[in-house]
Amino acid sequence: MKIDPETHHRSLYRTLTGAVIPRPIGWISTTSEDGVDNLAPYSFFNVVSALPPTVMFAPNKEGGEEIKDSARNAEANGEFVHNVVTADLAEGMNQTAATLPPAESEFDHADIERAPSEKVSPPRVAGAKLSFECEVQDIVDIGHAKVVFGEVVLVHADESVLTDDGKVDVEQIDAAGRLAGNWYASTDDRFRMVRPD
Amino acid sequence: MKIDPETHHRSLYRTLTGAVIPRPIGWISTTSEDGVDNLAPYSFFNVVSALPPTVMFAPNKEGGEEIKDSARNAEANGEFVHNVVTADLAEGMNQTAATLPPAESEFDHADIERAPSEKVSPPRVAGAKLSFECEVQDIVDIGHAKVVFGEVVLVHADESVLTDDGKVDVEQIDAAGRLAGNWYASTDDRFRMVRPD
Repeated sequence: MKIDPETHHRSLYRTLTGAVIPRPIGWISTTSEDGVDNLAPYSFFNVVSALPPTVMFAPNKEGGEEIKDSARNAEANGEFVHNVVTADLAEGMNQTAATLPPAESEFDHADIERAPSEKVSPPRVAGAKLSFECEVQDIVDIGHAKVVFGEVVLVHADESVLTDDGKVDVEQIDAAGRLAGNWYASTDDRFRMVRPD
Repeated sequence: MKIDPETHHRSLYRTLTGAVIPRPIGWISTTSEDGVDNLAPYSFFNVVSALPPTVMFAPNKEGGEEIKDSARNAEANGEFVHNVVTADLAEGMNQTAATLPPAESEFDHADIERAPSEKVSPPRVAGAKLSFECEVQDIVDIGHAKVVFGEVVLVHADESVLTDDGKVDVEQIDAAGRLAGNWYASTDDRFRMVRPD
């Protein structure tokens, strides 16, 4: 079966989110110019560059909606924090997906504890085992999306997710991945393949 | 524990790929100016926009290495295809991660069957249950990466992964997700959370 976006007359959102899986969840904290701490999950999120370390998240305008608070805040003050969503934080993350007015903080709404960041203003999620403090490097308009690129300027890592020699231990991070609709995937069901030379 | 990229003196590649999980796999086919069909997996890949439907993949230059064939080909002729990596294709996908000279096709090296595309030149992976034909919209240099944005101009979907009303059925797609090192995750271990209003 073929789906041609030109003649489909409907958004391909469901097709894209159903087919491009599993997606990592960027749980992005920002601070507005009025000092309100925003926290929201984005699955159009990933690493883009290892050097300098850079991640991107891409809020989409849905329908006639305004640009998301996270994108507006990151654009205004050039800073955001990404917090890794492990299984213990998944329910809290989901609560921060609620649509709130800009003056209300998702940290307070979802009862998520803040921890101070060091190099940027937006707070971290205190319970996150890994957080990346980021400075905005570039924002690119692609279709209905604002693609926000952020350089990672400081990583916070809980020792429970590190190997003895200080590397991130993927076997200790039970991260939640995003599928489509209300579906998520755990990363518990792992398998290995050795990359050929 | 804190990791400051400025004073770390090592790449954050392992930290980023260990923490930003699970990543979807972009299995990207391109065709060189000499007519060689390239096929390679990229986990710095995701949807960025639903309208127009747009995906990105971000090949990184590693060490002193040249830019990857996929990025060079996509830049030269403005076209690529993304093929969804379901569990049955994972081993073949892994074989296409081998470093080959530009004149050698990964399709042939890994014995992957081609299927013709309709709107773009690079072939699809015949066994893929979902493929996206894409036209390059923009290429942005971010650090050591070339971030290639492609608009999806045609979707091919096998009926086995669609619901009766023609939507992608995430429960039927056993996609492989990328973790770090040699680790991958299946999307078999799913859970649901209803998004709050």
